Amino acid sequence: MSLTGKHILSCDLFDRDMLEELFLLADLLQPVARGHRVCRVLEGAVLGSLFFEASTRTRLSFDSAFLRLGGAVSDTTGVTVTSITKGESLADTSRVVSGYFDVLVVRHPDEQAVHEIASATHVPVLNGGNGGGEHPTQALLDLYTLRSEFARMGKSLKGSRIALIGDLRHGRTVHSLLRLLSLYEGLTIVCVSPPSLPMPRELLDRAARRGHRIEETDNASVGLKDADVVYATRIQKERFTSTETAFDYSADFRVDGALVNGVCKPEVVIMHPLPRDSTAGANDLSNDLDQDVRLAIFRQTDAGIPTRMALFASVLGVAHQVGSSLRDADWYRPKYIGPNDAPFYSLQ
Amino acid sequence: MSLTGKHILSCDLFDRDMLEELFLLADLLQPVARGHRVCRVLEGAVLGSLFFEASTRTRLSFDSAFLRLGGAVSDTTGVTVTSITKGESLADTSRVVSGYFDVLVVRHPDEQAVHEIASATHVPVLNGGNGGGEHPTQALLDLYTLRSEFARMGKSLKGSRIALIGDLRHGRTVHSLLRLLSLYEGLTIVCVSPPSLPMPRELLDRAARRGHRIEETDNASVGLKDADVVYATRIQKERFTSTETAFDYSADFRVDGALVNGVCKPEVVIMHPLPRDSTAGANDLSNDLDQDVRLAIFRQTDAGIPTRMALFASVLGVAHQVGSSLRDADWYRPKYIGPNDAPFYSLQ
Amino acid sequence: MSLTGKHILSCDLFDRDMLEELFLLADLLQPVARGHRVCRVLEGAVLGSLFFEASTRTRLSFDSAFLRLGGAVSDTTGVTVTSITKGESLADTSRVVSGYFDVLVVRHPDEQAVHEIASATHVPVLNGGNGGGEHPTQALLDLYTLRSEFARMGKSLKGSRIALIGDLRHGRTVHSLLRLLSLYEGLTIVCVSPPSLPMPRELLDRAARRGHRIEETDNASVGLKDADVVYATRIQKERFTSTETAFDYSADFRVDGALVNGVCKPEVVIMHPLPRDSTAGANDLSNDLDQDVRLAIFRQTDAGIPTRMALFASVLGVAHQVGSSLRDADWYRPKYIGPNDAPFYSLQ
Repeated sequence: MSLTGKHILSCDLFDRDMLEELFLLADLLQPVARGHRVCRVLEGAVLGSLFFEASTRTRLSFDSAFLRLGGAVSDTTGVTVTSITKGESLADTSRVVSGYFDVLVVRHPDEQAVHEIASATHVPVLNGGNGGGEHPTQALLDLYTLRSEFARMGKSLKGSRIALIGDLRHGRTVHSLLRLLSLYEGLTIVCVSPPSLPMPRELLDRAARRGHRIEETDNASVGLKDADVVYATRIQKERFTSTETAFDYSADFRVDGALVNGVCKPEVVIMHPLPRDSTAGANDLSNDLDQDVRLAIFRQTDAGIPTRMALFASVLGVAHQVGSSLRDADWYRPKYIGPNDAPFYSLQ
Repeated sequence: MSLTGKHILSCDLFDRDMLEELFLLADLLQPVARGHRVCRVLEGAVLGSLFFEASTRTRLSFDSAFLRLGGAVSDTTGVTVTSITKGESLADTSRVVSGYFDVLVVRHPDEQAVHEIASATHVPVLNGGNGGGEHPTQALLDLYTLRSEFARMGKSLKGSRIALIGDLRHGRTVHSLLRLLSLYEGLTIVCVSPPSLPMPRELLDRAARRGHRIEETDNASVGLKDADVVYATRIQKERFTSTETAFDYSADFRVDGALVNGVCKPEVVIMHPLPRDSTAGANDLSNDLDQDVRLAIFRQTDAGIPTRMALFASVLGVAHQVGSSLRDADWYRPKYIGPNDAPFYSLQ
Repeated sequence: MSLTGKHILSCDLFDRDMLEELFLLADLLQPVARGHRVCRVLEGAVLGSLFFEASTRTRLSFDSAFLRLGGAVSDTTGVTVTSITKGESLADTSRVVSGYFDVLVVRHPDEQAVHEIASATHVPVLNGGNGGGEHPTQALLDLYTLRSEFARMGKSLKGSRIALIGDLRHGRTVHSLLRLLSLYEGLTIVCVSPPSLPMPRELLDRAARRGHRIEETDNASVGLKDADVVYATRIQKERFTSTETAFDYSADFRVDGALVNGVCKPEVVIMHPLPRDSTAGANDLSNDLDQDVRLAIFRQTDAGIPTRMALFASVLGVAHQVGSSLRDADWYRPKYIGPNDAPFYSLQ
């Protein structure tokens, strides 16, 4: 099935073939994402970036992806409510802005809003995160990163042991990622969380039905044993209900050098959706791994550009034109983006 | 008279010939506005979008219009006041930003501000709404929509009956629209409002002097009888003075299916500047007309793009280059923007 | 030394040769800055404009400069803190956004932040003002303006008398300007300020060591006597500590027609970083000079575009391509930007 003209609201839209097609396109777009080549297939197209709640990095990543395809972007953060405060329905807002743009990215704190907006327009709507719901492009870039890391090491995803650790109850990104991972074969999914913050049962059952092995534990050393991938989630204080407390989120679920070196596979891939809480005693992913080549967190955020470019090109039906449209860029680019970037990960 | 280099501050600037020229250009730019063709006549030009008060849809519409001409946009909402809070005069602010941009769009809550800004620069300034003053581009897109609807039906504006209903005292858009309608011949303008919220006398007298027939009533059934056009205005609670109350704005002035089907001409065109208040008991334009092909409110907002594109191209003196500059766009566009779009109104 | 790939954090980076090279490039880019020619050397490149505090004119100037080189811009004002409020380190923020953009402009109220951000990325970072620290591009455009004014009059900077007047203690821009002026020869720098708001000793000593003549006075008539240049600074109320008071900033340090005509050289160049406080009794640069051709304050702000364009082109290593990339622009441009622009200063 083609993605052309589709709304991208949930990970459930994707099957294996669509993912493969999307990731091959992302590979093709990598040199553009990295600023080595120029692609103008969307020159003349305009993206409406509607953020009903602030999420700077997500907005900037979508913006950059669309701009690097030659398109133009019109942004709005929060202020979109000016008309809504006047009693306008989401359906009206959606239909109005749809007359201005070729594609919309919508971020909204209310889980239902993005669906209401999408149902009022035939202009493709991309879900940039809908409250406690999904964040499909985050899951796509996570999976794309995982796929790239395995490919570099010549490892196959099949049979690998993937540990998801932290607040698995509110971690929207791990929910979406699990939906996508379930499409693959023979994985062992290890869920490491406090008993009070478990992965939703429905998602675990779905993965089990697809033949994956599921393990649950509240012991990090046990859960991360021989892990090929460790995906740490950040603490979602803002989503805690009154009955839950951040207290549950103790140092027992902190991923640091000692834990990784102690129990994981030597070539383990360490991931995190970011932002991570680096304040003292936050018990989030430790900074003592910052110079560790296995830390893939910034390769993850970097992957957001080619992934979102591929999604835009697919939804707008220009994917087939990308290959023939590339030309060299001739402005300066550093060999590495960050001082701690792994030697194998250069922009050249 | 040519619009090149002109400030567009008031509807009074326009005569019939200028409107015709502008609307023909808008017709030519429709395929670009709809994303079927690409126009780059303003590639290299930069628009400064200065919104001293938030008005998301107006800003996005101007942005999209300029971007679809190949130009670039730099936005600012509210924050412009950072220098003004330091005691800077509007004249200084105007002259400074004029050195950065090729054209300015200014939205300001104070009616005089846009005039102060325009008088301090020779860079064209477009009025994006100045408090209780005017909103010329809204009036232009309203008239362009009206013209298009009549053209489609093969009707002539001359002799038609146009009902303006609601808060005609604070309704800036109906004031500007009436100024433009007065340029045409032989219209019957029916003003339907509570006695306390009438159309300003000065505007009615001007229209009468130009030979138009004026009727005033506070009875919607009487006022909308045999109407060719019904233009409903939204309630302007925020502009009410302490002595006035929204109480005056009762269900008596609500435009809904029963009223329209009961008294209007069968082919009546129903318009509204939007946003409309769709909350319960708002007594604004009813949602029970949403699937009615005669409801032109979204064709109205869509018309903002070609109208503003035509204005930018005219003010910047590139109108004559538009025709020869168009090329096909090849990204996906839906046949209809919204699920309720009328069959005759498709993007193909 | 080449600027390609460099972070531009402080004026101390520059030597005379680099300044000359930069200013020659700025001269070449003037027709583009003024909208007469189009340059697309950065088509495909994306700027990340990260303003951790609002500074509208600075942001707009950087945006316009980058856009006029054919690049695209993604803006963020204040909202960047969404991830930082979640405990993210500046190093993480920097590395993440560096994966999205080819160059960053950073404005931050904390003097150290821009250095932390720059040290976490190899993507060039331009300092857009770091609290009480520096504002290098402001100093560059000030010097470029001064150089242009002298060139027009056929005067040499060498031996000229440059008066800096006002709050020289908190005036970040005069600090940066003095750093750059120190690179030239045989200047007389006159510092006119209240005794409580003097130019920092360290900067005066540096200038003296380089052979410049330094004078300090709290008497404006004495300080501005025979001045070739008068650089007035705005009152920095927001930077005053509790022990200091705006009271020190009396009318004694106000630059107006009477003072200028009374004591300065007839061809004196009057400058100010803007914004200036034009409210009654502000004692900032007087408006009675607004029609005086010697008032260079808007030629100063205009100079921000070619200067910042030159900086972007240099840092991104495309300076050598500019000359061969220019084509004529054909949209309308006024002969003068402002009604008070001096006859010698036209856009034609």
